[in-house]
Amino acid sequence: MVVVMHAAATEAQVSDVADRVTGAGGEAFISRGESRTIIGLIGDLDHFGDLGLDGMPGVDHTVRISTPYKLVSRDHHPDRSTVWLGHGDIRTPIGPGVLTVMAGPCAVETDEQTLQAAQLARQLGATVLRGGAYKPRTSPYAFQGLGPAGLQILADVRSEIGLPIVTEVVDAADVEIVAEYADMLQIGTRNMANFALLQAAGSAGKPVLLKRGMSATIEEWLMAAEYVAQRGNLDIVLCERGIRTFETATRNTLDIAAVPVAQALSHLPVVVDPSHSGGRKELVEPLSRAAVAVGADGLLVDVHPHPELARVDGAQALAAEDLVGMTESLHLMASLVGRSYSAPSA
Amino acid sequence: MVVVMHAAATEAQVSDVADRVTGAGGEAFISRGESRTIIGLIGDLDHFGDLGLDGMPGVDHTVRISTPYKLVSRDHHPDRSTVWLGHGDIRTPIGPGVLTVMAGPCAVETDEQTLQAAQLARQLGATVLRGGAYKPRTSPYAFQGLGPAGLQILADVRSEIGLPIVTEVVDAADVEIVAEYADMLQIGTRNMANFALLQAAGSAGKPVLLKRGMSATIEEWLMAAEYVAQRGNLDIVLCERGIRTFETATRNTLDIAAVPVAQALSHLPVVVDPSHSGGRKELVEPLSRAAVAVGADGLLVDVHPHPELARVDGAQALAAEDLVGMTESLHLMASLVGRSYSAPSA
Amino acid sequence: MVVVMHAAATEAQVSDVADRVTGAGGEAFISRGESRTIIGLIGDLDHFGDLGLDGMPGVDHTVRISTPYKLVSRDHHPDRSTVWLGHGDIRTPIGPGVLTVMAGPCAVETDEQTLQAAQLARQLGATVLRGGAYKPRTSPYAFQGLGPAGLQILADVRSEIGLPIVTEVVDAADVEIVAEYADMLQIGTRNMANFALLQAAGSAGKPVLLKRGMSATIEEWLMAAEYVAQRGNLDIVLCERGIRTFETATRNTLDIAAVPVAQALSHLPVVVDPSHSGGRKELVEPLSRAAVAVGADGLLVDVHPHPELARVDGAQALAAEDLVGMTESLHLMASLVGRSYSAPSA
Amino acid sequence: MVVVMHAAATEAQVSDVADRVTGAGGEAFISRGESRTIIGLIGDLDHFGDLGLDGMPGVDHTVRISTPYKLVSRDHHPDRSTVWLGHGDIRTPIGPGVLTVMAGPCAVETDEQTLQAAQLARQLGATVLRGGAYKPRTSPYAFQGLGPAGLQILADVRSEIGLPIVTEVVDAADVEIVAEYADMLQIGTRNMANFALLQAAGSAGKPVLLKRGMSATIEEWLMAAEYVAQRGNLDIVLCERGIRTFETATRNTLDIAAVPVAQALSHLPVVVDPSHSGGRKELVEPLSRAAVAVGADGLLVDVHPHPELARVDGAQALAAEDLVGMTESLHLMASLVGRSYSAPSA
Repeated sequence: MVVVMHAAATEAQVSDVADRVTGAGGEAFISRGESRTIIGLIGDLDHFGDLGLDGMPGVDHTVRISTPYKLVSRDHHPDRSTVWLGHGDIRTPIGPGVLTVMAGPCAVETDEQTLQAAQLARQLGATVLRGGAYKPRTSPYAFQGLGPAGLQILADVRSEIGLPIVTEVVDAADVEIVAEYADMLQIGTRNMANFALLQAAGSAGKPVLLKRGMSATIEEWLMAAEYVAQRGNLDIVLCERGIRTFETATRNTLDIAAVPVAQALSHLPVVVDPSHSGGRKELVEPLSRAAVAVGADGLLVDVHPHPELARVDGAQALAAEDLVGMTESLHLMASLVGRSYSAPSA
Repeated sequence: MVVVMHAAATEAQVSDVADRVTGAGGEAFISRGESRTIIGLIGDLDHFGDLGLDGMPGVDHTVRISTPYKLVSRDHHPDRSTVWLGHGDIRTPIGPGVLTVMAGPCAVETDEQTLQAAQLARQLGATVLRGGAYKPRTSPYAFQGLGPAGLQILADVRSEIGLPIVTEVVDAADVEIVAEYADMLQIGTRNMANFALLQAAGSAGKPVLLKRGMSATIEEWLMAAEYVAQRGNLDIVLCERGIRTFETATRNTLDIAAVPVAQALSHLPVVVDPSHSGGRKELVEPLSRAAVAVGADGLLVDVHPHPELARVDGAQALAAEDLVGMTESLHLMASLVGRSYSAPSA
Repeated sequence: MVVVMHAAATEAQVSDVADRVTGAGGEAFISRGESRTIIGLIGDLDHFGDLGLDGMPGVDHTVRISTPYKLVSRDHHPDRSTVWLGHGDIRTPIGPGVLTVMAGPCAVETDEQTLQAAQLARQLGATVLRGGAYKPRTSPYAFQGLGPAGLQILADVRSEIGLPIVTEVVDAADVEIVAEYADMLQIGTRNMANFALLQAAGSAGKPVLLKRGMSATIEEWLMAAEYVAQRGNLDIVLCERGIRTFETATRNTLDIAAVPVAQALSHLPVVVDPSHSGGRKELVEPLSRAAVAVGADGLLVDVHPHPELARVDGAQALAAEDLVGMTESLHLMASLVGRSYSAPSA
Repeated sequence: MVVVMHAAATEAQVSDVADRVTGAGGEAFISRGESRTIIGLIGDLDHFGDLGLDGMPGVDHTVRISTPYKLVSRDHHPDRSTVWLGHGDIRTPIGPGVLTVMAGPCAVETDEQTLQAAQLARQLGATVLRGGAYKPRTSPYAFQGLGPAGLQILADVRSEIGLPIVTEVVDAADVEIVAEYADMLQIGTRNMANFALLQAAGSAGKPVLLKRGMSATIEEWLMAAEYVAQRGNLDIVLCERGIRTFETATRNTLDIAAVPVAQALSHLPVVVDPSHSGGRKELVEPLSRAAVAVGADGLLVDVHPHPELARVDGAQALAAEDLVGMTESLHLMASLVGRSYSAPSA
């Protein structure tokens, strides 16, 4: 950490900062520049954060130099990780060498709709079924998901179709029941900084799919993953799903560079959601191609047997007629980047 | 709601949209323009949201025209509301005609620190004591608050100092215990879209202070308030605390215009947090002046007996020596806008 | 400047950086931390910028510590400046102790409309007349202003009404003719980084009103002012007019904190444009109150005799019936902050 | 265009709006909803923009329905365009079916550096040489480019290396001299809304490379292209180079979805700048892969013989040792999307 003093800071103020650091067992290196003095700190950095240096007289601001996350950092874990979900016959990896497609309906509406969507997912080469039983909706008057009944539908479809399921959990109190049914817990964008939920998910014994908050920096996203990891669960998959910007032509702005940046900083797999980022069906295929090309470990795709009847986000769901072009694209892209992808040929 | 068709939409597609609307009991008005056709819908708008019009063939996009919130809207409740908190001797209003200062330490650290901060709060003319027992922190390694012990400290200080307390709750499971101690529940910026928490807070029988999400639009903020209101609790105070932008000179960008905009759209009181928006002690007074001038119903201010020792956000806390100038400013501002403010004279 | 090395940087890479710095006449202080090494540099910082340290092997990133602007900085010019415009009888200051209102029509349309708007401006207590003869419009099909004919109208109205005029210049080639007519040159938000225009304006011998770019940081804004200053012209007034964010309820987000922040970093006067930031007539008065309260040195306000007929930005212009409330507000605010403001009593 | 009235608008106000529209030769369709009345307008939409409907009593806001650009729109020009630059032996297309790489040094520093960079560009398969003689720099103290001497160096290198050149022009007054030397004029991100420059470039008889403004919406970008087109020049290539967001891990946020969105709205070619968007050398290759995969018509890449000595943006320039991996990637990607790319084999 570096402490930058005000231009007008006194010698006594500089000494006070240095004294507090050394008093706490750290070392302080003072560099006096033409217009400012800076103090470099060495020692246990988390501790410095609690020293309140920012609030000391004469201090302009502080600059952190080391990363504030450890367990998910690539610094001491240079190999990229693979996360496995499911068990027995329906076990699937997410990580290097594989292009994992997770597909399904945005919301579980009926057993028939979910089964049909799962069949579409299989056609798309998905090895994971996604689907929401608990839906966080901006409006309290909008459809909020089927809850436990939706979980049961997902479990039934899993038995029939043979794919592990990932589904969202929106409250720490629901983690137990969702973990009973699901093979992977999804933390949505609105809950990325819901730390109680992160901790509960970290203790649930199931892999976690962690979506980036819509205004979270990459560092904050990795810190959220650290919350999960701290509970002993390193089976975490990061999901870039677009950030909020001034641009309104797309639902969110897919931050494609976040994939290689997060993969360089963390050993965790990183997947992309082309459906929620673009928010429009016709963008799903080009954004998927971009995601695979940039190095994503997988995709999270909305499919629906009847998008025009979907209760949630129909505008972005792929239908049966969209799948041929999409699987062709993914076959080509996967071979290009040397990842296995097992969609049935058209 | 208006449905805007693609330039290339066919007549059949236009009819299909109109038919689905009328089939659901609404009316559809078709206007054929030079390059596009638009369809105006009249009827129960929430219902239209579930019709999946966005996903229909030929539809470019839809534009909502009425507000999606009802209970917190000013449309049918033209008078601005006053929210009361506390009871017996320590009862305080927030609303028109009053400038309510809520002040205290960002985090409850010890009973002595909290008591001293509460005394500073009184000097500042605060009629509500704020202080965090549960702290949502970006890093899992940072101080997370004292939890129940912190609540007890707050309750003890309330007895001694005679101010009702507002404190943050970060998980639906904690609402019950926090509501036992607190006079008002605070929902923080990271949890504005934690709908389970909003609903639990709405059912707890205590007023709610709802901070705006750091990337939430004003409409989304009012929708979050609607979640609370829907549980029968209209004692909600909105708190503008700055939004996330590209500017890094301040911690957040205080959206000062959000105050009159939210007050025009909703009958709820709106207060401002000058401490977290600016993130720097020297900005607290000018931003407070701006907030009162623009019409805010109150302020939420960090004070600390020893900011340089604060475990959380020391850089933005006011200390004893800052209070004289601040109370003078507030006296002047309050009289200017015709609000009562009762700081002891210096 | 501080150079932060990669965690994996070698000793040789650290030495290379240090050597390049000392080879260029600077001093390098090396601090070896647990996970990283940082190098503090002392010397001529502009020079370091050209050393290409960012691109050297082993370098993660660099952090600048001193401000990159000099002439407009408050570091060596602690007193805040006053800028005068006009001459002879119609000379007006902008700076500490005064609340300078600059008002007029967004665009000069006809001589009658401009004269009527100028009369409204006087009623508002304006001591500067604003009005655009050259309008930078997003659409090439929109009204682009009257050009030289508009300048002549402004000059005629100045003679009649006795107020100095500020008007926008949008191309370096027009600076000469605009400077012939105008008392102050306005650089608009879209041209804040049009460096050729800044330099031409800096050489024109007239004060400059520099609007902040809609996505410019405060530092970039001050750097743009430095471009003007470098040509020998320190008669610069900064104008905060809102930044671009995700929020669409207002035209732009007024960054009210930018006023005290810019005033602390620079000695230049800072004014606020409440009309373009809010984009709606009903926000002009509350945002003006906030601006004066926060310490702004003046306001830039759209007025129009017939807003409903305005060719540009009618939605945000004040009309005759809005002026009484506005002048009352400004009288109160000005007295509160101890600034002179000379609107005629209603 | 649709006019949305206030909830409290009177019948008279509704009639006034309708009357103004019909008085101007348009048609108005009135739809009365439960809470609001909306008025759909049909006719010449540019004209409506000048009617000042936004400012009329009772009007809440207006929603535009047709696109405000015509010449660059794909509505009446469904085939995507190819832009040719250069002449005689060194003629190069940018458009469908080709992957055009434009590469070179960010800034022209010396003839030797430029020639070496051009040789690297050839190795990369570039068919256009880029290089800046006029550099728009945030700081007036930074290197501003060699100006005319830089243009001469570029022309000399073109003769020797046989590639057409694209170079930036930053002031309308320089368009003539730059057009004399260059095969294509680049308008930079800071000047996207410098309308005088756009018009001058539109009249210069050379193709134009138009970078997106760092906070410009896609619609504003297309409007800027319309400014160029309106002067009779449709040889325009759009360049996505990243937008400004809250994320600081990358220099800008590459808006990868902007490529297919802009290609759907406009017939103009769209290229991507992976160097300025990521701002870091190690992101150039993954972002280039993503850009080709999403459908970009070309790339704009910084190369430098000695990035560690570069006077501008050395951190993002590719050096000789980076080219083998990059060309392999581009060969694979180009064949995948069916575009010709002619890098020499390694």
